[in-house]
Amino acid sequence: MDQPTGRKRKAAWNIPATRIAKNTHNPIRKIVDGMKLTPNPSKQMIALSIGDPTVFGNHPLATEITDAVIKSAKSEKNNGYAPSVGYEKSRAAVAAYYTCEEAPLTSKDVIFASGCSGAIEMCISVLAEPGQNILIPRPGFSLYKTIAESQDIITKQYNLLPERSWEADLDHMESLIDGSTACIVVTNPSNPCGSVYSQEHIHDILRIAERNKVPIIADEIYADFVFPGEKYFSMASQTCDVPILSCGGLTKRYLVPGWRMGWITIHDRHDIFAQEVRQGLTNLSQRILGPNTIIQGALPDILKLTPKSFFDETIASVKKVCDITYAAMTTIPGLKPVRPSGAMYMMIGIEMDKFPKFKNDVEFTEAMVTEQSVFCLPATAFGISNFFRVVLTVPDDKMITACERIREFCATHYCTSNGNGVCEIKMDIHEMETIPVAQTA
Amino acid sequence: MDQPTGRKRKAAWNIPATRIAKNTHNPIRKIVDGMKLTPNPSKQMIALSIGDPTVFGNHPLATEITDAVIKSAKSEKNNGYAPSVGYEKSRAAVAAYYTCEEAPLTSKDVIFASGCSGAIEMCISVLAEPGQNILIPRPGFSLYKTIAESQDIITKQYNLLPERSWEADLDHMESLIDGSTACIVVTNPSNPCGSVYSQEHIHDILRIAERNKVPIIADEIYADFVFPGEKYFSMASQTCDVPILSCGGLTKRYLVPGWRMGWITIHDRHDIFAQEVRQGLTNLSQRILGPNTIIQGALPDILKLTPKSFFDETIASVKKVCDITYAAMTTIPGLKPVRPSGAMYMMIGIEMDKFPKFKNDVEFTEAMVTEQSVFCLPATAFGISNFFRVVLTVPDDKMITACERIREFCATHYCTSNGNGVCEIKMDIHEMETIPVAQTA
Repeated sequence: MDQPTGRKRKAAWNIPATRIAKNTHNPIRKIVDGMKLTPNPSKQMIALSIGDPTVFGNHPLATEITDAVIKSAKSEKNNGYAPSVGYEKSRAAVAAYYTCEEAPLTSKDVIFASGCSGAIEMCISVLAEPGQNILIPRPGFSLYKTIAESQDIITKQYNLLPERSWEADLDHMESLIDGSTACIVVTNPSNPCGSVYSQEHIHDILRIAERNKVPIIADEIYADFVFPGEKYFSMASQTCDVPILSCGGLTKRYLVPGWRMGWITIHDRHDIFAQEVRQGLTNLSQRILGPNTIIQGALPDILKLTPKSFFDETIASVKKVCDITYAAMTTIPGLKPVRPSGAMYMMIGIEMDKFPKFKNDVEFTEAMVTEQSVFCLPATAFGISNFFRVVLTVPDDKMITACERIREFCATHYCTSNGNGVCEIKMDIHEMETIPVAQTA
Repeated sequence: MDQPTGRKRKAAWNIPATRIAKNTHNPIRKIVDGMKLTPNPSKQMIALSIGDPTVFGNHPLATEITDAVIKSAKSEKNNGYAPSVGYEKSRAAVAAYYTCEEAPLTSKDVIFASGCSGAIEMCISVLAEPGQNILIPRPGFSLYKTIAESQDIITKQYNLLPERSWEADLDHMESLIDGSTACIVVTNPSNPCGSVYSQEHIHDILRIAERNKVPIIADEIYADFVFPGEKYFSMASQTCDVPILSCGGLTKRYLVPGWRMGWITIHDRHDIFAQEVRQGLTNLSQRILGPNTIIQGALPDILKLTPKSFFDETIASVKKVCDITYAAMTTIPGLKPVRPSGAMYMMIGIEMDKFPKFKNDVEFTEAMVTEQSVFCLPATAFGISNFFRVVLTVPDDKMITACERIREFCATHYCTSNGNGVCEIKMDIHEMETIPVAQTA
């Protein structure tokens, strides 16, 4: 037999996973996996939970988008390795698309990533050391926390204020900054809130960044995805002084999340990132060598040829569902929807004291599945309690049905307490229509 | 003006990149970027340096491969988010393609990644903690070092033996194992060596892993890419006891490196990985949410419909170039090619004492560019000295020209020293043909 090797030999197989692997977890999954999601067998399930505009098939792609991919595949020019930061011509196309006088871009300022998630990972990884902290919004997209905490980067959550259409609580934000704050993550337009920040609010945030010399990661994957009459301002277009890494991609506005075509645009008028951060991002891009090259090759055509009507139709459809939902939710006692201005989500507050049967938003949304087969994500998944998020990319008729079921659910469980936890007044569902909107909106 | 915030305010902008960003660097890039690569203006450049089979256009894709992608894009079924580990049906297709009696696979054993590089990153990240060590081959693919060292994982390089067709030095390998060894990386078939391990050699390596209870990461991106008459054995097919993470993908055999379609197959008959490593890999897959979904959707067709003739033709073409190159190199005094059995590379030894003008393989290959416009990667990029690597996917005629130029280059600089560094005998290029092959092979 083989000679033993003494000290080197382990007695038995024992292979733990690493800390980083164990600590990489999506809080949404954790919460959803912990819920008992057994729909009412007599009602077809309606999932208002998934931020994927493709699942219901009601948002067809512009033919120009698919055609560009087919052309790229047929050419057989885009099958080899691209530079890890991406094809030059494709990065130039992104730069040309987003450049503006206030925030000029060239291809050198664009780095491709595997989806916007990959872009966010690279930005956090290049700016924040283990032990440092980053500021993230609460409620906010869970990936920031997932990425940061798996690398032992501390997250500090600044509050967004529902009563101010989810603007950041500026005092709270600034109070969280210390000498170890590596960056502020700003999501605009917002997932999960659907908020779109005014120019003034962006200026307020930028002043905090400038005062404290903290760079910004702008998660702008919903750039330009705003309802008619609203205006979107990129963070970078509003400052000459604060260095900004903006994360974007095809995912949401072009309705192709699975394609994993994301990018970072570097905005850095005073060359603050030039010393190390640019090179650092290029270095990090070498870990996975960029996104799929067929899509990279198609990108110039996609950005150039996709007609404005495609975006207009998508947004009009989302806006219509938003209006249906908002109108319905404002009439439901115990719910307090916050009207969105863009993206594809609405947050709806739950007056938990009116639903004493449920401890929190998780139990509330769980029961809505059990009884009504409607699944909305509890906002605990985004870091706050007593709200739930609905996705606005579902077809109208499904949303109307869902709203009726939510109304019935709330009517069944709504009650005002007598002050010692005993339910006193139960709502009658047939009364509800008469409740004035102003009372609950 | 704004109120100062005292201790929180930094005096000036200063944003360093993180350690991980600074430490993520590709040694190949570092070496190549440091070389003076100015081709001879009177000779067209021939790059034998890039391991990308698409660059010369002499390896057309099977139409079935492109057709599958076009079908997937046209279907518009594969645009949304896939599960982070990949579409079930696509993982099932990979499992069905690679399963065998000796190493059975189901879809649960397959996790998708952004290229084989992404798969390797996930495998190293799930097994090795910062401060632990992993064993990697020398010479070897530089990514292992890039990934590991950026995460403060120590790499220990076990020698491959050119005189034994680049088999691993087993004693050296085992001597490197200690209580902190997280895994052994085995590359078979090998980049940069083109070696293909015999069943016996695989058994020898597996015995070391089993004795020391160290799992294996098998980089098998060149699986089945072996010359006629050679046989490829996957590591997993040769053991029931050693848990193995095998990394593969479409990249090389299907000639589409830019598509970033990689995967991990988990081989673990005794459920050693079941405790933590499987979940850890699933967790890590959530960081970038998997590879492009159009390719994922096309994968079942690609694996099923690509005709055997496509692989046969690709390999026959590479083999032909291999034979041309080997025959030429064996006749060049001062060079010692090692005959490959698969993949798409040949390593060629340089008898540096015969080329006293050059300090090392880097200077040697640099001068070959300056004088002959032929660029081969110095093996310093792979961790050893006094070799260079040539890529065998170039067209025949280019390789013939390249070989003639390499011959001329060597003839120009070959000399035997008188023992005190003074060149005594210069070769005459016209004499060279007469030198018996045995003398230098």
